[in-house]
Amino acid sequence: MSKIYQIKEFAADEKNLQLQETIFHNANGYIGIRGTLEEGVPEDWDTMRGTYINGFYDIAPMKQAEKLCNLIEDKESMLNVADTQTIEVSFAGRFFTMAGQKHCSCTRTLDMEKGITNRRVDWSSEEGWRVRFDITRMASFEERSLFVIDYRFQPVDFEGMVEIHSKHLGLVKNYCNPQDPRLAGESHEHLRKEEVYPWQNGGCLVSSTMESHLKVASAVVNAVTLNQEEQPAARAAYDEGAHGIDIVYRFRVKPGDEVRILKYSVFEDSIRHEDFRKLAEKKAVRAVEKGIDYYYGKQKAFLKEFWNNSAMEIMGDDELNASVCFNMYQLLQSAGYDGYSSIAAKGLSGEGYEGHYFWDTEMFMIPYFALTNPEIARKLLEFRYKTLDKARKNAKLLGHERGVLYPWRTITGRECSGYYPSGTAQYHINGDIAYAVILYYKATGDWMFMKEMGMKILLETNRLWLDIGNYYKGQFHINCVTGPDEYTCMVNNNYYTNACAKYSLEWFGKLSGRFREEEIEWKQFAEENALTDTELNEMKKAQERMFLPYDEELGINPQDDSFLQKPIWDLAHTDKEKFPLLLHYHPLHLYRYQVCKQADTVLAHYLFPEYQDRRTEESSFLYYEKITTHDSSLSTCVFSIVASKLGLQEKAYSYFGDSAKMDLLNTHKNTKDGIHAANMGGCYMAIVNGFALLRAEEEKLSLAPTLPKAWDGYRFRIRYHGSLLEVRVTEETCRIERIRGAAVPIELYHRQYKLDEKNSVVEVACKGK
Amino acid sequence: MSKIYQIKEFAADEKNLQLQETIFHNANGYIGIRGTLEEGVPEDWDTMRGTYINGFYDIAPMKQAEKLCNLIEDKESMLNVADTQTIEVSFAGRFFTMAGQKHCSCTRTLDMEKGITNRRVDWSSEEGWRVRFDITRMASFEERSLFVIDYRFQPVDFEGMVEIHSKHLGLVKNYCNPQDPRLAGESHEHLRKEEVYPWQNGGCLVSSTMESHLKVASAVVNAVTLNQEEQPAARAAYDEGAHGIDIVYRFRVKPGDEVRILKYSVFEDSIRHEDFRKLAEKKAVRAVEKGIDYYYGKQKAFLKEFWNNSAMEIMGDDELNASVCFNMYQLLQSAGYDGYSSIAAKGLSGEGYEGHYFWDTEMFMIPYFALTNPEIARKLLEFRYKTLDKARKNAKLLGHERGVLYPWRTITGRECSGYYPSGTAQYHINGDIAYAVILYYKATGDWMFMKEMGMKILLETNRLWLDIGNYYKGQFHINCVTGPDEYTCMVNNNYYTNACAKYSLEWFGKLSGRFREEEIEWKQFAEENALTDTELNEMKKAQERMFLPYDEELGINPQDDSFLQKPIWDLAHTDKEKFPLLLHYHPLHLYRYQVCKQADTVLAHYLFPEYQDRRTEESSFLYYEKITTHDSSLSTCVFSIVASKLGLQEKAYSYFGDSAKMDLLNTHKNTKDGIHAANMGGCYMAIVNGFALLRAEEEKLSLAPTLPKAWDGYRFRIRYHGSLLEVRVTEETCRIERIRGAAVPIELYHRQYKLDEKNSVVEVACKGK
Repeated sequence: MSKIYQIKEFAADEKNLQLQETIFHNANGYIGIRGTLEEGVPEDWDTMRGTYINGFYDIAPMKQAEKLCNLIEDKESMLNVADTQTIEVSFAGRFFTMAGQKHCSCTRTLDMEKGITNRRVDWSSEEGWRVRFDITRMASFEERSLFVIDYRFQPVDFEGMVEIHSKHLGLVKNYCNPQDPRLAGESHEHLRKEEVYPWQNGGCLVSSTMESHLKVASAVVNAVTLNQEEQPAARAAYDEGAHGIDIVYRFRVKPGDEVRILKYSVFEDSIRHEDFRKLAEKKAVRAVEKGIDYYYGKQKAFLKEFWNNSAMEIMGDDELNASVCFNMYQLLQSAGYDGYSSIAAKGLSGEGYEGHYFWDTEMFMIPYFALTNPEIARKLLEFRYKTLDKARKNAKLLGHERGVLYPWRTITGRECSGYYPSGTAQYHINGDIAYAVILYYKATGDWMFMKEMGMKILLETNRLWLDIGNYYKGQFHINCVTGPDEYTCMVNNNYYTNACAKYSLEWFGKLSGRFREEEIEWKQFAEENALTDTELNEMKKAQERMFLPYDEELGINPQDDSFLQKPIWDLAHTDKEKFPLLLHYHPLHLYRYQVCKQADTVLAHYLFPEYQDRRTEESSFLYYEKITTHDSSLSTCVFSIVASKLGLQEKAYSYFGDSAKMDLLNTHKNTKDGIHAANMGGCYMAIVNGFALLRAEEEKLSLAPTLPKAWDGYRFRIRYHGSLLEVRVTEETCRIERIRGAAVPIELYHRQYKLDEKNSVVEVACKGK
Repeated sequence: MSKIYQIKEFAADEKNLQLQETIFHNANGYIGIRGTLEEGVPEDWDTMRGTYINGFYDIAPMKQAEKLCNLIEDKESMLNVADTQTIEVSFAGRFFTMAGQKHCSCTRTLDMEKGITNRRVDWSSEEGWRVRFDITRMASFEERSLFVIDYRFQPVDFEGMVEIHSKHLGLVKNYCNPQDPRLAGESHEHLRKEEVYPWQNGGCLVSSTMESHLKVASAVVNAVTLNQEEQPAARAAYDEGAHGIDIVYRFRVKPGDEVRILKYSVFEDSIRHEDFRKLAEKKAVRAVEKGIDYYYGKQKAFLKEFWNNSAMEIMGDDELNASVCFNMYQLLQSAGYDGYSSIAAKGLSGEGYEGHYFWDTEMFMIPYFALTNPEIARKLLEFRYKTLDKARKNAKLLGHERGVLYPWRTITGRECSGYYPSGTAQYHINGDIAYAVILYYKATGDWMFMKEMGMKILLETNRLWLDIGNYYKGQFHINCVTGPDEYTCMVNNNYYTNACAKYSLEWFGKLSGRFREEEIEWKQFAEENALTDTELNEMKKAQERMFLPYDEELGINPQDDSFLQKPIWDLAHTDKEKFPLLLHYHPLHLYRYQVCKQADTVLAHYLFPEYQDRRTEESSFLYYEKITTHDSSLSTCVFSIVASKLGLQEKAYSYFGDSAKMDLLNTHKNTKDGIHAANMGGCYMAIVNGFALLRAEEEKLSLAPTLPKAWDGYRFRIRYHGSLLEVRVTEETCRIERIRGAAVPIELYHRQYKLDEKNSVVEVACKGK
């Protein structure tokens, strides 16, 4: 399977440009650089020229229109840091640009095996001079602080002076759009110049943030050659206006000459390292010493291992193959891996949602990493563990005496949601994080993690359920919360939330039982956390009596207590231009109807199959399907999974298609602001947990693969309890192979197998066609 | 009954000062001037030095923390206009001040028969010089644009030069307090200088507002006399810093001399008059010509008529008498009377709630005016009629296809609520305004008004009920609104709201029936408003099937569908410092409990006795009483009325006491920001509609007076269908006299009488002791 995504005849018009800035961004979980053009675009073009560091933020004011007690009034916001990508080249004074050029052909490529993006341009100047450009960019997985531009050009028929400006700019701002609630509405000055010191072929720039008092250093070294020979005639200039450095080269070229600019940029920040400035310099020097080929090699090796562990192939549909592969690669590019960061809704690809982490990580992306790169999943959970104290403060702000409440959107763990009805009120975030902890444990069996961090997260999030809930007519109720579906807010007994809470309480009880066997450690845990049997019993009772709304007449689980009393939104007669509804209707109006932005109860049915029977699941699926707009990008993937489960194969496939190509086809029309990272995880789940009906349980891995009609087959690799397995489904058979690792108990089409020393493969007839 | 409220030994410390600025403010429905000291206070003291014009506003930004579709992002805010009250007097260079002075005794008086405030000060300077001050202020009811300060002083033992600065300052700002949600959080520049032109003994100042593009002129004339002789040695100076005028007098005085400064200020604005500047000048000149005694005389006559029509006396409790009288006077001072304005929550006495009009006017103040000054009640309703178009726009913003939705808080009719869950979501405002229209009609029989304005208001507000509601299991539901109790927001079937809607629909049907008899006019009305029989039938059906929640087990009306499912807030164990709860708990936390800020269902039971039986009313009263904090100033008066109705006389009296003295005793601790105008109306209602159980019905006036134990008796005058009546209740008898006007049918203790030519008095034994 080729892992290349390419756009031929790329046209640099304003709209297309922004979209492709996202698609061709380079990131490695630490830094992300949008696929903007080195040479820039006209000043009046709307471009999001950004370089981001995962978890690096400033605090922006977010005053409430009316002040109410304990509402959030400032927010963390991911910063655009120094621009090191600018390279301007002129030929006898004529600057290279693609903007509005007729005689310019361009191909852009993302190579997911090499881990690079590339832009090739055949350019003709207004004078008719032709020059070929070949520009490669890479955010290194070997050295995550490193971003390299390998910029080459060759005059075809030009002879004369060429001038190169390789810039490093400090005066950058974040993008803003006051019209779109999903982007920052105001532009603030966030960065202050601390130090700028150029050297002959580059320089270093240190900035500090206004409010969060963080610092970031960017060190840049340029290496320019003409026909493979070094070109020393550089001149460094301080660019006063932009608080930056401009390294200038001037020399003569003739047709056929090969010019190459290697620009190494290293970013380090004060969150992760005290000596971040020195470190950046040191790494920049080392990068030049090791040379680009060293990093190209390491990048390829890293990705070989990545694809080996998480191989995914769909036979008989190359386009889909490319989309799925693209999605998995983007997840890798986006994921924090160091415990200081998580995965932003848009990864590191753009400024949508201001770089905030949501439930997206736990519910849509950790499931992917837990099965393919459990080390990353663990680090993502570690991030939540580290922020327990902030979640405790958040719970206190909301009036809770015990437990923690994770923030709906955050960078460091503080709540950054300004509109609590569809923000902080989404208490299910607690259950989502607990779910991910349990899922990680089920997929990996990592009991050490549970003892170190997982159990503590479960305990504290569960304590909150006890604090918020109350008994009414013998059942445990959770009032005034918002479920995942943001088109209905602040309701009582949201089915999803209650199911989440029940599951999390149940598993905490179960795992406490296991923990208790390690007497000394359990005692220590209980003591440290003032956990008593009384409290454990309280949890057990709440779990057992958790109210899960059910409507006899329709045979479905209502989304909440009063959902079915509301009129049904007439989607058939709603103008197409009125979608997404949230941009066209006052929230209060939306809340008054049966209309869903996304899967809510349907998601609960996927996650917690034990809490309702299959008939309820089917009736509910059909009911909610009719009233869901999928205005949220997290919706179609879930509908696909549940459709698979219910044997509604055509629907499953159709929803899957919507999910798989969301960004490449820009179906939500806002990929320009960044990828839809959660949907990418959801797309993966739609295959593995949907079509293949895979469930990683504590004691076994169960599957019941189906094969979409359009496909010849599919295969994927996953890790389960440390072992690497490959699942291959064709029209004829379903085959599971243990590639490496210990024996694995398997339940395939409801029959038990064991992939052990004797039999490392099980192959049976494919039953789901 | 003496109508004087006096504070002897008034101490000018910072805290007391602010409170008394409110208590001793002068207003007349058009202008309001806080009772600040002419000479000022030290610069670092927190004072709200303000002059306000009813309905005069600017627009201030009110950005939402997160932008959502159609949320309000700016607000109207009542402006502090030019300061004309500053008079500074110095004796041989030593300025008169009360701040922090030991040797200074002061009496402040509010005379509600003369319509003036007065401050008498015996002052000793640090040098030991003694001077007596006697300062009277008046906002004229004869000439509502006019504010006069009658400033007199007399040196006791001082001899030397006196210097008087009578200032007129344009550079004023509104008060702000970022800690209190009930005040503006930010201070904005709202006024721009347009013209300043001094004349010898005064001057004129014209300012315009930044955003609303309104203009205001203030014209001032000073007349200074020494021992009754004119003192011509004035010098006018332009005060650059304050954009104002400083009229300076310097002359010699000796012990016993009498100095008098008469300062006439006239305010006019561009909302009401195109030639507002000339008008202000003209009126200022005329005021000087007519002289102060003319206005004193007119003021007294006006108030004589006022007290004659709305006489109220409680026999045997002078203090209470004074409080009740104070409340009625404040209502008069506060009420807009010109159709351009209404009554702000704080009247014209301070900047709390930014001068906004709420439901307070319709539900707590119009009931008072309809019975005492129906002309004012009519004007207040006219204001709502004039803003129908803005209410229609507001409905559209909320997604409603038909009808109007009145704003929760406003100055010109635009919604100014920044937090919609306890703002715009209070749809009951529509029912409140409809209720006031019906109440006004019942009390006055003013059918002309109904045809001109009332029916249109009823039609359009009722149309909204049809638009928002839906049928569920055969009953008409209203979802996702907030009732008067802001401690529970965005609920389904709030009892109060549904009852309001039912009542309003019912009366529109009834009145349409009457209107129909006037065939031509009805046809015209129906045509103009596209009103069909189908729509009328729709309204009838909705009314008949309106869902009014009832709980069998408790025998009460639940506040809303899910109220009783929530846990009861433990008020007994809540720290006293945690009240009002809204300042100490996140709204989401409050919403999760059975806890009420104010009467909600209990208010509905008072207003709509026909929708539940007495037993339900009693059980409900006792139930809600236990969970109501009365954090809202609108609560105790309603509890008092309903307690009276239920025969719970002691409770009725206790709640009444809380209500009657709220501002004079500063029980809510924020009277410094302005009076609680609605509570003042509520206090009146607690007597007339509570103790006297008076109901003005369409065909008759019904009463069943009770007498609180502590009282010897009480009497009050009201107007009903144009006639003036006096009700007098003593331990022995209840006596009703028709003072003037046509015959009036009376129902007294459930027996029918007619006060006509033959019998203008009915007197029976008092039954309610």
